Amino acid sequence: MRRAGVLLALAVTLGGCTVQRQALLGRPGTPPVAADPPPPLAVPPGMAWLYGSGEAAALSEQAYNGMVRYVGGVLSAARDRRGRLPSQRKEGTLPRWPASAVLAPGATAATAETLPCGVLPPAVVLDMDETAVLNLGYEYDDGQHPREFDQKRWERWEQGGADKVVAVPGAVAAFRALRSMGVTMVINTNRSAANAAQTALALSNAGLGAFTHGDTLFLKGDVDGRSGKDGRRAAIAARYCVLALAGDQLGDFADLFNPPGPAPAIGRRMLTAVAPIEGRWGNGWFMLPNPIYGTGLGTGWDETFPQDKRWSDTP
Amino acid sequence: MRRAGVLLALAVTLGGCTVQRQALLGRPGTPPVAADPPPPLAVPPGMAWLYGSGEAAALSEQAYNGMVRYVGGVLSAARDRRGRLPSQRKEGTLPRWPASAVLAPGATAATAETLPCGVLPPAVVLDMDETAVLNLGYEYDDGQHPREFDQKRWERWEQGGADKVVAVPGAVAAFRALRSMGVTMVINTNRSAANAAQTALALSNAGLGAFTHGDTLFLKGDVDGRSGKDGRRAAIAARYCVLALAGDQLGDFADLFNPPGPAPAIGRRMLTAVAPIEGRWGNGWFMLPNPIYGTGLGTGWDETFPQDKRWSDTP
Repeated sequence: MRRAGVLLALAVTLGGCTVQRQALLGRPGTPPVAADPPPPLAVPPGMAWLYGSGEAAALSEQAYNGMVRYVGGVLSAARDRRGRLPSQRKEGTLPRWPASAVLAPGATAATAETLPCGVLPPAVVLDMDETAVLNLGYEYDDGQHPREFDQKRWERWEQGGADKVVAVPGAVAAFRALRSMGVTMVINTNRSAANAAQTALALSNAGLGAFTHGDTLFLKGDVDGRSGKDGRRAAIAARYCVLALAGDQLGDFADLFNPPGPAPAIGRRMLTAVAPIEGRWGNGWFMLPNPIYGTGLGTGWDETFPQDKRWSDTP
Repeated sequence: MRRAGVLLALAVTLGGCTVQRQALLGRPGTPPVAADPPPPLAVPPGMAWLYGSGEAAALSEQAYNGMVRYVGGVLSAARDRRGRLPSQRKEGTLPRWPASAVLAPGATAATAETLPCGVLPPAVVLDMDETAVLNLGYEYDDGQHPREFDQKRWERWEQGGADKVVAVPGAVAAFRALRSMGVTMVINTNRSAANAAQTALALSNAGLGAFTHGDTLFLKGDVDGRSGKDGRRAAIAARYCVLALAGDQLGDFADLFNPPGPAPAIGRRMLTAVAPIEGRWGNGWFMLPNPIYGTGLGTGWDETFPQDKRWSDTP
């Protein structure tokens, strides 16, 4: 169905502008007059969609339903005749765990080797923001007062916003279902290690249960101190058989999507469709929607619209 | 990871405005001067994300991978010992098809009864725009010249844009895989029946194969002439066992999400999480992302941000 989204985007883009321009113009020849207070902003379309729509909620439920279904299947296949998982048996007995969902050091998108699981206990590793919780409080403030990202403001949010988040649709039921299967839920987030207690409180307030820093909650500052999550993923994978990864950013799955230095010849979008990577989406790797912020935004016209797919309306 | 999305949104919102304002102001006391040509617009964030990001591509691959996995599982479970599907056997023999993914007439979100499948041949029914194909050409024009939706412009796009679309990531491989399993792919779109040939050409150009109006391609104007798709879904379900539905709008799954008259007491977002509906996402119903247009946009502040989840930064 085609409809009003374009009009809304236009209102957001130009709404305040029109009023200011009229106020400034006044009558020809008269000096500019002070602008009226700007009209209330419309909700940015990405926020309306992600936080307000049934469509985005359904996408999130779909990701979490897929995760429960996938992990349930892996656990069934890994049980022996007495119902024991590999983590409850001696190393080398059959059936084994599949390989971890975590790529091995040195893996490329073309090879995508994963870590072995041995007899480690099963876990699912998830990003936090816009993956496990929706940051309604922070984004409300940001939507009402659009301004450049400020790390200090975000830190104040980490410290003071624990009661202003909600769980992503489907997350509470999925966390409960997976834990009831004996799976440990682990959060790997770039929230700061300095705010571990408030971050655990936010997760608990959202209904996602208890998390322990260094065991089931990994933060920026832990392990190697980096923003890239491969180091923390490796530390988690040393303790758990990571059956699934979830996130809203490609970096929640592997750092190879965000190489240092100049942009790689093959774009990030194409990298998601390389053969061994393409098959992982929904099969161990679970993406959540987020058109509001992150590495998924910021492409220019040329990267977004190939030259041969451009159309000009000629009424 | 937190980042530059907010800044981008701000640039989109205010970018052109600043330049116009400076040009209009001139020096105090001087009459307004003509504005310079506006600077190039930034790509609207929703378009950058949906058409340019690896994150959105991964979400689409995930939906299509989930569809292939789900339908493959249903087909396996429905085969008899000789490998024959219910549609290749006499009515009443076991195992049967599961019920259709199409809700029965009179079903509500709370009951969600579905149609029986009998011995009909298997099909998957998908919306077209931003579900099977990405309308790069149209949205490029719209992004470059933001303006209110115009049905006549959209019709010119239906008639002349068949070579300016691409398949949604994952769709080509999924259509191929499902057809190789003996599943008929059916498109149910609100593009106009008058443009059936150009619409079939667009699908073919995108690599999605051949579609026949009235058999595998259902358009607005067909069956009951309505925008609501329940009538067409019923007509398709009279010929096929619809194992899965896919779309980017809730109306692609059931008209009950879009009741006529005043908005229902329970919001569309909550309706997606009612028990029998919640379990369908990823299990027969497959949602594709679209934060650019549609029924998922347009909520106001109060519907998007509950009062008790609002936060104000106090530096």
